[in-house]
Amino acid sequence: MKTIKIGLVGFGTIGTGVAKLLLLHKERISRRTGFDVQLVKIVDTDLARDRGIPLPEGILSADYHDILNDPEVSIVVQLIGGTGIERTIMLEMLAAGKNIVTANKALLATHGEEIFEAARQKNASVAFEAAVGGGIPIIAAIAESLAANEIQSIHAILNGTCNFILSNMEEHGSSYASTLKEAQRLGYAEANPAMDVEGMDTAQKLAILSHIAFGVNPDWKQIPRIGIETVDGVDFRYANMLGYSIKLLAIARRIKASDGEMDRLELSVSPTLVSKSSPLGDVKGAFNAVSVIGDAVGHSFYYGLGAGEMPTASAVVADVIDTIVGRTKITFDTLELWNPSRKVRSDIQLAAPESVVGKYYLRVLVEDRAGVMAEVANALGSSGISIASLIQEGTSDEDNRFVQLIIMTHETTEGAVDGAVEKLSHLDCVKSDIIRMRIYDEK
Amino acid sequence: MKTIKIGLVGFGTIGTGVAKLLLLHKERISRRTGFDVQLVKIVDTDLARDRGIPLPEGILSADYHDILNDPEVSIVVQLIGGTGIERTIMLEMLAAGKNIVTANKALLATHGEEIFEAARQKNASVAFEAAVGGGIPIIAAIAESLAANEIQSIHAILNGTCNFILSNMEEHGSSYASTLKEAQRLGYAEANPAMDVEGMDTAQKLAILSHIAFGVNPDWKQIPRIGIETVDGVDFRYANMLGYSIKLLAIARRIKASDGEMDRLELSVSPTLVSKSSPLGDVKGAFNAVSVIGDAVGHSFYYGLGAGEMPTASAVVADVIDTIVGRTKITFDTLELWNPSRKVRSDIQLAAPESVVGKYYLRVLVEDRAGVMAEVANALGSSGISIASLIQEGTSDEDNRFVQLIIMTHETTEGAVDGAVEKLSHLDCVKSDIIRMRIYDEK
Repeated sequence: MKTIKIGLVGFGTIGTGVAKLLLLHKERISRRTGFDVQLVKIVDTDLARDRGIPLPEGILSADYHDILNDPEVSIVVQLIGGTGIERTIMLEMLAAGKNIVTANKALLATHGEEIFEAARQKNASVAFEAAVGGGIPIIAAIAESLAANEIQSIHAILNGTCNFILSNMEEHGSSYASTLKEAQRLGYAEANPAMDVEGMDTAQKLAILSHIAFGVNPDWKQIPRIGIETVDGVDFRYANMLGYSIKLLAIARRIKASDGEMDRLELSVSPTLVSKSSPLGDVKGAFNAVSVIGDAVGHSFYYGLGAGEMPTASAVVADVIDTIVGRTKITFDTLELWNPSRKVRSDIQLAAPESVVGKYYLRVLVEDRAGVMAEVANALGSSGISIASLIQEGTSDEDNRFVQLIIMTHETTEGAVDGAVEKLSHLDCVKSDIIRMRIYDEK
Repeated sequence: MKTIKIGLVGFGTIGTGVAKLLLLHKERISRRTGFDVQLVKIVDTDLARDRGIPLPEGILSADYHDILNDPEVSIVVQLIGGTGIERTIMLEMLAAGKNIVTANKALLATHGEEIFEAARQKNASVAFEAAVGGGIPIIAAIAESLAANEIQSIHAILNGTCNFILSNMEEHGSSYASTLKEAQRLGYAEANPAMDVEGMDTAQKLAILSHIAFGVNPDWKQIPRIGIETVDGVDFRYANMLGYSIKLLAIARRIKASDGEMDRLELSVSPTLVSKSSPLGDVKGAFNAVSVIGDAVGHSFYYGLGAGEMPTASAVVADVIDTIVGRTKITFDTLELWNPSRKVRSDIQLAAPESVVGKYYLRVLVEDRAGVMAEVANALGSSGISIASLIQEGTSDEDNRFVQLIIMTHETTEGAVDGAVEKLSHLDCVKSDIIRMRIYDEK
């Protein structure tokens, strides 16, 4: 049996899971590859902390050059977050001809072209199943299993922290602030939760998925994005009355063009009302899920743990196996990922955000007096928005002066909603910010 | 661009879908493979029926030798059901060195070793994603994406006909017989529905999945199997009261052995109470779904259309693409599928059906008189079965002489339930057959 030597950069949560699989379940990996797979070096800045695994002597190092300069190491598993030194290390590893397995979504979403060009230069490969959806094999599903399809849409819950917070707010009727604190205490949210709760992590993952599914290469920072800190506990109650849950949804949706024009691609990340009776609407806690519609396969749905030590390690080690047996190289050569000089151009271009069509949930606090409903209806109607349903509910203020209006619109454009919100905000009868969320009715 | 020539045997529903993708979306397949992929011959006994696709002249043939004897055809898509002439044709195609893509689960479940041996002899490959779960990429998920895991269990809804019938019985409170008729009228069930409703189709698919996930090679006919014709409308009502739906569930579950002994594998196909709040319990209509638990990934779940022209064609053409680019060959060489002389033996053996542990739902019609409950409880207790919950409900017979007892047990063995049912059936107070179903509580 031939030997394959592996180096691991990053001995944090996921790195520990990967080391467990490679060291403690070595025979399993050998069985699936036909090779004696040896983890020979683990690099991290913290060599003191006990990770709870018996480690072969001399395997730890604080210097990634110990991997870079070892010509026998052909695969580097790079599990450090960020786009600074992490980019440098990956480019150096690729320049040395090593194959990369990574979970670093920020790096791929930001420097994909540079990294894949470096890989192509040395005929090496980059595998990144773990970068999106943790243990869910969504990269493989879209890149390989659904390859016969024209993908129509992807609707996905890609951040376990946000879904944990939203699920808990929904279940316990608690506020965003207190639920975030609880999530931090339990280790589901970081001390600085901005990347998660502001939707940046989700936008990076969506950029990667849309590259694979649609061939576009969007700047993830330009993807329209709303975080979950805007969601109020009361919205869960109204959403529930209407049959919906609220999820931080990443959307990539093909908008078919008339003949001779290019299809457009809608990309967005925002808290969205999702029908409770759909698979996506039922995703609770730290789980992730991806709903893919293809023109041949119809609706398909993938669900699993999107983060955590072992689920993510499962995806990383699957990539290690794919890299060893040669599947990774085939897939990414064929798909010409992040290759600006690719032979086949994408047949789609990004849609202008204001042109995107959808249904919306609006909530606004208004004065409870005659004529108010007409003013609100007029602001919507004159923006070209048609009302599908409306709930009016009294508030508990002392004098019953205010009521909440909850409006569900028929299909309209993001631009029309912008216009309506602008008009509403100038009405004297409107006494709050206008809360707006997309609605997704899965067929 | 190099050319790849494809032959299609079987121009029925799925064959038509495959021809649509290969002929009408040729550029898509070429983009994903880097080859000019040409469907050059379609063989079927019915050449007259209009399939609604414009066909190149001369592409149709009634004789599979037109494909067999064309040395330029390197991939044969074989989409005919059955294990007679279909086996002969496949073996001849393989002997001629052609690579096979098929959806024929019966053939693989029955003659897997012979077929894969024929493929190995000629260094050819056999791809069969479409044989299980239609458009759901469950073969790829288990064989590749979850390769780092020891699979703990598979719980799956693998037959759209049965799920359609059960969903409709549940929704409309209708009888099995009338729902089957409706399913036949709508084309969801065949005139002779035995393969579907008796669970044979599901058992074949389970045999294939368990070969890939656990390395076992069970005789599908030996898998303990109960069909859906035993399910009564009233059971949906009681299941619902208890928070469950009823699904025809295929189960493959690893039972961990103590040190030094081999793990055991439970295999079964039967109508099962599935918690409504779990993803599997929520699968409606003709959809299929597979819930996989791996020791690293934890719970993962895959959902989609399990049958039909285009969903199944999506899986078939993904296999065609995988075969062209070389992924299929790598995967099945590495996994040594259906290779009796495989280097790595399975670490598991089939469990004796009576030793399988689970919770059960029992329904029995008994006389409504003093002492009956004690007799029933005694029959269960003396079989070692502990009652978790019990519902007693009067019946609408004129004299109120009978009551329905609905019993949920704690964990027990299949053998203990066999014993209890035997004892119950001999009690004078018991006035009906005893209905029994497994209960699956997904964690």
